[in-house]
Amino acid sequence: MEGGARTLLALTMGDPAGIGPEITTAAWRALRAGGGPAFVVPGDAALLAAHAPVRIVADVAQAAAAFTDAIPVLAVDLPGPVQPGRPDPANAPAITGSIDCAVALALAGQVGGVVTNPISKLVLKRAGFRHPGHTEYLAELCAVPGQEVMMLACPELRVVPVTIHMALRRALDSLTTAEIVRCGRTAAAALRRDFGIAAPRVAVAGLNPHAGEGGVMGDEERTIIAPALDALRADGIAVSGPWPPDTMFTPLVRARYDVALCMYHDQALIPLKTIDMAGGVNVTLGLPIIRTSPDHGTAFDIAGQGLADPSSLLAALRLADEMTRNRRAA
Amino acid sequence: MEGGARTLLALTMGDPAGIGPEITTAAWRALRAGGGPAFVVPGDAALLAAHAPVRIVADVAQAAAAFTDAIPVLAVDLPGPVQPGRPDPANAPAITGSIDCAVALALAGQVGGVVTNPISKLVLKRAGFRHPGHTEYLAELCAVPGQEVMMLACPELRVVPVTIHMALRRALDSLTTAEIVRCGRTAAAALRRDFGIAAPRVAVAGLNPHAGEGGVMGDEERTIIAPALDALRADGIAVSGPWPPDTMFTPLVRARYDVALCMYHDQALIPLKTIDMAGGVNVTLGLPIIRTSPDHGTAFDIAGQGLADPSSLLAALRLADEMTRNRRAA
Repeated sequence: MEGGARTLLALTMGDPAGIGPEITTAAWRALRAGGGPAFVVPGDAALLAAHAPVRIVADVAQAAAAFTDAIPVLAVDLPGPVQPGRPDPANAPAITGSIDCAVALALAGQVGGVVTNPISKLVLKRAGFRHPGHTEYLAELCAVPGQEVMMLACPELRVVPVTIHMALRRALDSLTTAEIVRCGRTAAAALRRDFGIAAPRVAVAGLNPHAGEGGVMGDEERTIIAPALDALRADGIAVSGPWPPDTMFTPLVRARYDVALCMYHDQALIPLKTIDMAGGVNVTLGLPIIRTSPDHGTAFDIAGQGLADPSSLLAALRLADEMTRNRRAA
Repeated sequence: MEGGARTLLALTMGDPAGIGPEITTAAWRALRAGGGPAFVVPGDAALLAAHAPVRIVADVAQAAAAFTDAIPVLAVDLPGPVQPGRPDPANAPAITGSIDCAVALALAGQVGGVVTNPISKLVLKRAGFRHPGHTEYLAELCAVPGQEVMMLACPELRVVPVTIHMALRRALDSLTTAEIVRCGRTAAAALRRDFGIAAPRVAVAGLNPHAGEGGVMGDEERTIIAPALDALRADGIAVSGPWPPDTMFTPLVRARYDVALCMYHDQALIPLKTIDMAGGVNVTLGLPIIRTSPDHGTAFDIAGQGLADPSSLLAALRLADEMTRNRRAA
């Protein structure tokens, strides 16, 4: 069956008051007939039953068999009914329980990987969640805290921000050679293992306009970035840079690399979202498991209104499928 | 004749060892038959005569009459022959002389505006040029030093970087409310006067990821940007922001504004060049004259090889034409 069988993925429930239930249902309708992965949802059956047929299953074999007819659910129950757009800290145990279950299935090799629906840090924090975010929580569950690397991917571009959710001034203060090297190594390894790219080409962005123009506009290219390029090159990685940030995301330059290491959040996110707002996928590298997620939040403001776009979740499911197949073939 | 007559623009020579001569010739071939502006080049006739028919003219009337048959040139002679790709400080007096002549024609109302071919600051500096750059030199010639504002435009997007050619760290230190307000006022006035937009919508970008997310990731949105929004609003300008930088350049959000004020060079240039590498035009606002230029440099590395793309120069000429017509109609 290997190769011909559909990949089974675990899709977490996410915040039940967000758009997760709608986009999960839309993704199931798009995928049920085949031509893509199947998935099982650790979550609340009643939540999804409002939108589509649901089948409570006991294990992944039952889930795979059920997928054509209904959304297979491994029961992780909510304490009560949910009102779309009205997040409730009382749902926190089920939200994290869904993540715990999905990760356990992936670590045990029972699913190909984990795809996560959006959660709200604020809602979970009010219920006592003490992790900085979704991704950090996953890294802890996988017993590799601090080894996670964020990648965003769309068909035209893959980016890895070396510094992420912090003020721009703090990003400048936090940028280190070691962190660029860590992200570069992790990205190159993942591209080889999970993306079927034998000799990945890693492009490293400059930090300053025109990559500093030889030191005239900033010296981080020389003091921080160049030593990272040397270290990655010494590892045998096909690395290039520092590239002038403004021209490196044009189609001509994009064709010259497989992933761009970016020095701060918006250097990575502006080109990615400008190129492909709807189809971007968030991929967590550096974990033992495969994990993708849609590149948007819970969207409480439009939840339950039938307005949510499932494109990014579908892209996340398809990419996790592709990564699973590549990893199995490796 | 007004309205029906072709706009005559002054096109500077730029560095003669760069791609200026080639793209000037290509632009003339594209425009000579009509359907766009005509131009006159203050420059060296022999330099252009290698590529196309040239006519030395004595004034703008002769230039307008000649344009269909030859590139009209107001003689600003180089000291000797030029080798493409080999810039020579000895050419500096003719390079700046061409700019001086073009600006004088525009200030006198003899041409609609000035379009500049690329120059090399390094080459001019070696010859004693003491201005920080091309645009600053133009502002001095126009007797409005420090009032210039840079805008980059392509058909899908207009951006104004509030801080420009400096290290990112210095840009953070230099960003002020007053400078955002100055750029916003100048941009709004120019859009009304030269772009035919009666009530321009000005979008102001945040500085930090997610525009600081309510102060969690930086406070410049509150301390520096919000007061600028208030001041611009008090002027009656339709201003919005601070926008999360990563999503504000998507097609959906772009449709909601006429110009984006950006806090640093790459926040403006990454989206612009990612969307339209070849067609971007650099527009200098805040001068009494209309000035546009192609959004690229001298490209000494490919000069004389027939590889240069004239798209950006053509776009610069066409935009200067459009601005001239709008200003005359106002």
